[in-house]
This record gives sequence, structure tokens and C-alpha cells, in this order.
Amino acid sequence: MPPRPFNTPADFEMLTNIKDSPLFKLINPASIAFFGASNNFGSMGTSQLSSLLELGFEGPVYPIHPKESRVLGLKAYSHVAELPEIPDLAILILPTKIVLDTLIQCGQKGIKHVIIVSGGFQESGDSGSQLQQQLIQTARSFGIRFLGPNCLGIANPHHKLNTTFLPFVGHAGSLGMVSQSGSFITQMFAYLARMGLGFSTAISVGNEADLDMVAGLKYLAVCPHTQVITLYIETIRNPQAFIQVAKAITPHKPIVAYYVGGSESGRQASLSHTGALSGPDALYTGLFRQAGIIRANTIEEMFDISAILDNQARPQGNRVIIQTHSGGPGAVAADACDREGLTLAPLPLSLKQQLTELVPHTGTVGNPIDITFSKDRLAYFSSIPDCLLSDDHYDMLLVYLLMPKQMFARVLRSMDVPEDQIASETSKLMDEVATNFNRISQTHGKPVIGFSFQAQDSSAIKFFQRRNIPVMPSPHRAARAIAAVCRYTAWCKGPHATP
Amino acid sequence: MPPRPFNTPADFEMLTNIKDSPLFKLINPASIAFFGASNNFGSMGTSQLSSLLELGFEGPVYPIHPKESRVLGLKAYSHVAELPEIPDLAILILPTKIVLDTLIQCGQKGIKHVIIVSGGFQESGDSGSQLQQQLIQTARSFGIRFLGPNCLGIANPHHKLNTTFLPFVGHAGSLGMVSQSGSFITQMFAYLARMGLGFSTAISVGNEADLDMVAGLKYLAVCPHTQVITLYIETIRNPQAFIQVAKAITPHKPIVAYYVGGSESGRQASLSHTGALSGPDALYTGLFRQAGIIRANTIEEMFDISAILDNQARPQGNRVIIQTHSGGPGAVAADACDREGLTLAPLPLSLKQQLTELVPHTGTVGNPIDITFSKDRLAYFSSIPDCLLSDDHYDMLLVYLLMPKQMFARVLRSMDVPEDQIASETSKLMDEVATNFNRISQTHGKPVIGFSFQAQDSSAIKFFQRRNIPVMPSPHRAARAIAAVCRYTAWCKGPHATP
Repeated sequence: MPPRPFNTPADFEMLTNIKDSPLFKLINPASIAFFGASNNFGSMGTSQLSSLLELGFEGPVYPIHPKESRVLGLKAYSHVAELPEIPDLAILILPTKIVLDTLIQCGQKGIKHVIIVSGGFQESGDSGSQLQQQLIQTARSFGIRFLGPNCLGIANPHHKLNTTFLPFVGHAGSLGMVSQSGSFITQMFAYLARMGLGFSTAISVGNEADLDMVAGLKYLAVCPHTQVITLYIETIRNPQAFIQVAKAITPHKPIVAYYVGGSESGRQASLSHTGALSGPDALYTGLFRQAGIIRANTIEEMFDISAILDNQARPQGNRVIIQTHSGGPGAVAADACDREGLTLAPLPLSLKQQLTELVPHTGTVGNPIDITFSKDRLAYFSSIPDCLLSDDHYDMLLVYLLMPKQMFARVLRSMDVPEDQIASETSKLMDEVATNFNRISQTHGKPVIGFSFQAQDSSAIKFFQRRNIPVMPSPHRAARAIAAVCRYTAWCKGPHATP
Repeated sequence: MPPRPFNTPADFEMLTNIKDSPLFKLINPASIAFFGASNNFGSMGTSQLSSLLELGFEGPVYPIHPKESRVLGLKAYSHVAELPEIPDLAILILPTKIVLDTLIQCGQKGIKHVIIVSGGFQESGDSGSQLQQQLIQTARSFGIRFLGPNCLGIANPHHKLNTTFLPFVGHAGSLGMVSQSGSFITQMFAYLARMGLGFSTAISVGNEADLDMVAGLKYLAVCPHTQVITLYIETIRNPQAFIQVAKAITPHKPIVAYYVGGSESGRQASLSHTGALSGPDALYTGLFRQAGIIRANTIEEMFDISAILDNQARPQGNRVIIQTHSGGPGAVAADACDREGLTLAPLPLSLKQQLTELVPHTGTVGNPIDITFSKDRLAYFSSIPDCLLSDDHYDMLLVYLLMPKQMFARVLRSMDVPEDQIASETSKLMDEVATNFNRISQTHGKPVIGFSFQAQDSSAIKFFQRRNIPVMPSPHRAARAIAAVCRYTAWCKGPHATP
């Protein structure tokens, strides 16, 4: 049997209408046939149906079960032929040996979109590969487009759709993802929520027997909810189409990719995971560079970079001014920025003069500017950053956010605020401070990025995230992510980005 | 005026009795005179006294204030001479210009230990340097030993002592720290608590006019609460004593150091922070290597490494077995370990045979071993890791901990546990699982290290931390920290570690 014929003209064509994507109905189905869920919570299928129902999917869901009359409270059908309509999508979480037959039944019913969660195909060796080819041929013969096998499907919170086995956590956001690991979708729900980020649509492509990463990229390129596209890559099966499609996207929508197969151990692990044949690290570096894709060295870096790209102004250069009130974190940030190739230009004299009255004598008017312990603590969040960003010598502000609630409470107490109002007044003050940063960033059209050692989901940090100020969990992570964003912005201005 | 005469014989001598340390009374005072606190919460001194009282320091505290009769509810004294006893320690948070006079008054009272928090000395240029020399001379003439100036003092939660401006959070632990930045003590309280770690004693040395990093090292070397010593370094003012003292410590107590001055920007920031003159990066790399000090590249790495060294068995080699039930995180961990130089030895045939019945056919019995979705979910936490660590081919286990509470709850539901017992039974199950890991680690004398993308302070992760299983927040951070620990263990076995 022939493998999937990659590199057909259709692979290279960009979409103008999102509804033309073969993924559209998969990602935005009106109704779903669900195979493999029961009332036994020890099974994967039941977990996945639970997740779907918990997010509140609004269309009809039809469980197919040979014995049960009801599954998780829904009317169940013993055979797909019995369904009262042709559902937009079928989800198969079944033992490997009955997947093919079920696909045929779906085809006979007239279903055109399928997610095959089941494993045991190409990733399991030769006999699995043959079985996978049979899936492809069967799908072709019925005009079915499918995701997988060996995937978790889709998370599209804007459509209240979550086919993965973990409940969706967080909010519908603007981060698109195509992933060769379902885990890096489902297990990132809570992670992204802590960062104040959320998926627009995340696509688990598994073995990519039919719909692949390129199809996902093309969908996300025209998805109106998606601001940034992230990729978890174990291999690129269709490099020519991948490069051409990515190149068409990156000048106006950033793509951030993490590639895992670069080391020998990573390569072997990928092979047994999704049957992926990885290439040498340097090859992928070149490929990403050619396509204007931002390469992340770790999973956390991929999302750090995305957080800065999501909703923030693009830096016009790589000149950073660091603001702190703690010498140590300021010094570490300076060292980290320097090592990442960012420029820490010294303060021009005129700016120094402006700032002198805002900074106490124990502070340092340099870069970093270290305010230390000042009487007017609110200047740290208003007049000082405003002054810094109005200067032409700086493209962005990196600001240390210690933000302990207790300190704000102590200040309010000193202003004779009654004890029973401290909590609400503290919140009001913090929101004001975060709103100010956002306003300053917008006024000057320059990014403002915070860094802090506080928990990402501490209430103080949340105020900033809600006002679109990304807060990186350490100076090093901030420096690395900023440097990546600066390289991308520079690339966008260069000749390679011109179509 | 001469600078502090470094490299006297006393600098090199190790302590046999902790009470012989000039830091002992500073770190374990029975009573404290407190200068610079008032009833105004906008002042630094008031914040610091608040922190001291909030942790519940048990000895008498005497605020000295020229006007107030009571400060934060304590009887205040207008002059140190009036105190009813000679306190063990005086803490000075005063305007620069009155520090010297106050130090003289302390000397006249007979006080022998002082923390000078005030800034405006060596870090502020020539006139500040002169003032600092006067402090040293005055202290010498009265036989006073002091920390600072330009420091935050001490956090010794075992003695309920916290002289920094942030309230202490967390528990008294076994991590010692000497820091040239007070921030990296006070602002790490909550950070360490999230990791399940805690300071034994942390010493902010500031400008090190008298007591320096070497004195701190010597104290922590004999401190019975301290298992691991961490250092935040902007410069080493006394390199000969530092190397000799560190060399005497590292074979039996690990030292993990972060050095910030290596880049030009880091160097300049250090200079204005604590008047530190840093050296080139390579010099510090060599110096650390010579002394057996583990070098951390970031602040978070310093504490990650410490978490593995704290309470875990030492790995006898660098052969890691990775256990996962999610292919993606397993592949990323393998790639990260490989890049860090760790060995991922393939599974010997005998072990493969043993494991075959524990792993479903969709899983992979390799390294990583990927269990995927198994019927007996508890095997993941008991028989499988036990089997892996009993094999001679592996020195440690790196295990992915997804640990979503909802999944455990779903399993319990499937076992017909009544709804009102799900929460308590979930906790019981999780504690059992964590206890098991600890038991397996102890039985085989090999470290078990978790990694997870969950929040460090999520209740699931807390169960592991409480049972001394460190859980790293990403596969990359786990790999880096493990590799550092392996290098240290190898060094301990080598000829340089022999006294």
C-alpha cells in the first residue's frame, strides 16, 4: 500500500476561508458520535467523554456502546447506523483491532470527520504500520478526513470542545498549538492558566496518517482567535510543505516551535512515541531559521515567548532598560540580558537628570535603575516607567515585580486606611498599578515585561496578567524570551520575510 | 585608613564548635536592640521590626526611638544607654549619617554584635568608602563584630529570627545560604516554600565590611540544621580563604553557588549594588571547580540542585531511567538528559521480561519506559519503579508526575467509593503513593526525582515534597539539576576531595 501522498499541490495552498480547511468540522463540530466511553471511570474513553461534557459542549453527543443503554447520563446507541442524524465528527477510543471496522461503519453512515485516539499503529512497528495504511485507504474510499491515530484530538475552548482526557482548565485564549504529543495539549491547560494564557485551538496530530501539522498550521493561520502559533515537533514528515506554509505565516503571525528529536535519546524516544523519524538538530535549526520560526529550547521557553508575543507591542530594537528596587534581582537580570545579546544602553544624561528626584540617594540611576526603598512607592509603577519609556534610547522595559501584598497592606495602614478596608483597597491599588503599566506600554508602543519569583498564580501577579503585562517567573527566563522575540522582530523587518 | 586585613590565619581555620563563630550570637541572639523602627509603616525599619515580631522571636526586643514611648506595641527607649540589659545584638536601620555615632553608643553600652542594614557606604563611591572604614575602625576598637552595612541581616527560622523586611513564609528547613543580596534571602521565602524547601539559616552579608561570606561558610559548615549550603555571589573579596574553607566543606556538605558578575552588565550592576568588583566568568568557573563547588547557571537552578541534594540519596553514577505515562514529556526528558550528558542506558533483557506484564501493549518498555494508559494505575507508583531501581544498570529514577487529582477521583469513583469520601480517599491514596516512592528510594539507596508541569504548590505535588521526593517543574530543569548533582558526586569520589 502506498504511503500518504505528501507534497500534493493542496499541501502548499494557503486558505482564505477557514471553512475550507479539512479541519474545520473537526474543530467546530455541531454534533459528535463517541466510541469507547462507558460508565467505567477506569477507561480512557470515559475520561475523554467526561472532559467533553464537563466543558459543556453544546451540540448533541451520541455515545456508541454495544451493551449500555445510557453512558454518563446520555442515551447510548448500540451501533452508529442507528443514530438519528449524520454527526459532524466521530471520536474513536477503541481497542486497536476494532478501529478499522468502526471506521468503515462511520464511512457507511456518511460521517466525514474522525478523530482516532487509539494507539497501536505506526508507533508499534511493522504490523501497526500496515494497519495504519489500511486506515488511510479506508478513509480515502469514504472521503473521510481524520486526525491520528494515537492522538488526543482537539481542545477548542471557544467552541466548548475538549476531546482530551483531562478536564479543561482556564479560559479560551489566543494561543494556537499543533502538537505531536497530546500531553503537551491536555497537560498544559493548568500550566497556561497559571501564566494567564489560554489556547485558542490546540490540535493533537498523533501519527499524522492523514491530517498533519501542515494542515494544522494552515487552519491556525486563518483562525481569528489565534494570535500566536506554537508547535511541539518530534519530526516533520512533509518538510517542503511545512517550510513553504510556515514562511507564508510568520511575517504576520509568529510561530514558536519546540523540537525534541535533536539528541540520540530524544530521537529514539520520538520513534517509539509517534513513529517519528527525527533529523539532526542542526537541520531543524536551519529549517526553522529559513521559515522565520522562533525556536524554543525548552517547553517553558515556548510558552514564555508566546506570552510576550500575545497582546504586547513588538520591540523595535533590542535595547532594554531594567527597573528594580532590589539590587540582586536587578543584577541577575542585567547579567542574563547581556548573555542573551540584549543591549543595556547606559542612561543618557537628560534622563538621569529627570530621574534624580524620583530615586532616593541609596538608589542607583543606571541600567538597571535601582530605586531601592523609596518613600513614594507608587512612583515605581507610574512616573518612573513612563519616564524611562519616553526616552528614545530604549525599546522595552523589563521591570522587577516583588509585589508582596503585605507591603501594600502596610503602606495602606500607614495611610490610616481602616483595617476592614485593607483587603479591598489593596486589590484596588494593585489593579491600578497594573492598569498603569498597560497604559504606559500602549502610550509608548513599547513592551513592558515583568519578572518575579512569586508564584505565577499569586493574586498579585494575576492583576498584571489580566492587564496584558506578561510576568516571567525569573530574570533568566525573561531575558531568553525577550531575546527570542527581538530576533523574530528583526527577522520580520528583513528581506526573508517579504513574500 | 587600612582596609580590613583579609587572609589572617583566623580566616582559614575551620570551627569545631559553632559557638566559636563570631556569627553565633548574631544568628542566635537572646535579646535585640532595634534602631530605626517607628510606628510609620512606610519606613523600612518598621517593616523589619514587623517581620521580627510576626515570626514570634522569643527574647526581649528593645526599640530605640528618640520620640516614641512605644513602637509597634513594645516599650521604646530614647537611648541605648537606658536599656535594662546588654542585648546580644543591635540592628541598625538608620540614615547613613547617624550610623557611626549609633555604633559608638552600642559599643559604649557593651554590645558586641551588630547588623548594619543602612546603605550609603562603599557601594556609593569614595566618601561612602571612607565612612565604611570608620565603621570598621570603630567596631574594632569596641570589639564589635558586625554584618553589613547595606544588608538585610539574618533569617534563622529555627530560632524564630527574621530581620528582613518581608514576613517569613514556610518552614524551618535545611538549606543554608550566604548572600550578597538581601533580596535573594527575603524574596525566596515563598519561593522555597513552594518547592517544599526551607532555610536553616540565611545570612545577608551586604558590603562585608567585617563579617564576610567566608565567615558565613564556616558557620554553616558546622550548623547542625544545614544539609546544603547555597551562595549568591557578586564577588569574592577574599579568594584564598574562600577556596581553602570551601574545599574543607564540599567533601561532606555540598555548596551550590550562583555567580552574577560574569558579563559586563552583571559586573557593573554588582559594582553599584554592593561595591563588588567582579572577575571574569572563567576565573570563577575555575575557582568553583577547584573548591568542589557546584556552579548553578541561574537562581532557579541553584535551588533545584539543592532540592535534590536535600534529603535524597546520592547517585552512584549518571545512569538515569525515565518512567512516564505520557510519551511527549518522556521524550523531552530523554532529550534533555542526553544533552546534559546523562546516560540513558537501554533496558537489559531480563528487566524487559519482568516488566512486560506490567506495561500494556500500547506502552513502550524502553528508556524512557512509557506505561501509557494502564488498567492498574497504582503499579506506576509501586511495582514498576521498584523493579526499575532494583536493576544494577540504573543509578536513579526520573519519573513523570502528572498527578491530576481529578484522575484519582475518577478512579475512586469507579471503585464505588461514596462521593462524600472521594476527597479524603484521594488524599490518602496520594500520600500512600508518595510514601511508596520514598520507601523505594530508601530501599535501593538511589534517588527518585519527579518532574511535573503542575504548580509546585499544588496539593498533589506537596504530597511528594513532604515525603522528600523532589519534584522539578520541567524535564529540562530536572535534567540540569541531576547532571549537576552527578558531577558533584563524581568529584567527591575523586582525588581532589581528599583532604
